[in-house]
Amino acid sequence: MNEDIFKARESIEQVEESHDFAPKFDEKGLIPVVTTDYESGEVLMQGYMNKEALLQTIELGEAVYYSRSRKVLWHKGKTSGLVQKVKEFRIDDDQDCVWLRVDVQGGASCHVGYRSCFYRSLPVGDAAKDSSSSNLSFTESEKVFDPKEVYGDAPNPTLL
Amino acid sequence: MNEDIFKARESIEQVEESHDFAPKFDEKGLIPVVTTDYESGEVLMQGYMNKEALLQTIELGEAVYYSRSRKVLWHKGKTSGLVQKVKEFRIDDDQDCVWLRVDVQGGASCHVGYRSCFYRSLPVGDAAKDSSSSNLSFTESEKVFDPKEVYGDAPNPTLL
Repeated sequence: MNEDIFKARESIEQVEESHDFAPKFDEKGLIPVVTTDYESGEVLMQGYMNKEALLQTIELGEAVYYSRSRKVLWHKGKTSGLVQKVKEFRIDDDQDCVWLRVDVQGGASCHVGYRSCFYRSLPVGDAAKDSSSSNLSFTESEKVFDPKEVYGDAPNPTLL
Repeated sequence: MNEDIFKARESIEQVEESHDFAPKFDEKGLIPVVTTDYESGEVLMQGYMNKEALLQTIELGEAVYYSRSRKVLWHKGKTSGLVQKVKEFRIDDDQDCVWLRVDVQGGASCHVGYRSCFYRSLPVGDAAKDSSSSNLSFTESEKVFDPKEVYGDAPNPTLL
């Protein structure tokens, strides 16, 4: 699998309406990726791929990201065992975003230990008018795994 | 609604494990947003918000994005009528990505006329080993609306 599979971006009609796979990478060489659980539809995480990560994902059928904090290719699950099998790979209209529908072996995708990275919600609209409403609520009550047991002393990828 | 609702980012534990809403904007002042259909779970689009768009979204309970191509706040649906009512607002572990679960009045979210922006798929893994497999397949067979009727001669937001 090599870069030959990427077509040149020649026209809006080609990018939006044709069968050509012509992904757009940003000025850092990255494309954002939304990853959802194939069964539940829940958004598990949002990450990035560079060209090599994208090619490896297509070839392996497993999610390979580019870690912006660690600056390395990141075959998700290689450390934690929580591999993401890609059941469906989608691209958006202007081909600058990827949607992966995955089957997560182990059931969790978040380095904090939760099932989804999106484990907190914020009230909006009428519910946001209370003075106490600018606090997050947890949507998952228990962690699926203990990150210390899985990752040991590896540096936390969260940047302030 | 003003920027007072954003807490300062003080520690990894605070950002990941507390009730503090402390979103991280990138060097361009933007945060990526994943938008899914509240009923079907389908990913409709991926966009960006700046601080003002985020505040307006929270206040209105309707999705307001920042358009990178047009460089303006973009109250989704103001032109097309396809307003996105926010049923749930989630933030991820390191608070650098938003997930909106929305109810789309009119049923479509894509400027090309499809229900979802992600209307094409690419084979991966074993299915990608054919030489013919680097082409996209359409996952929606019909457009929900005619973009010419809805948007008229407005410039297409897709950039090559």
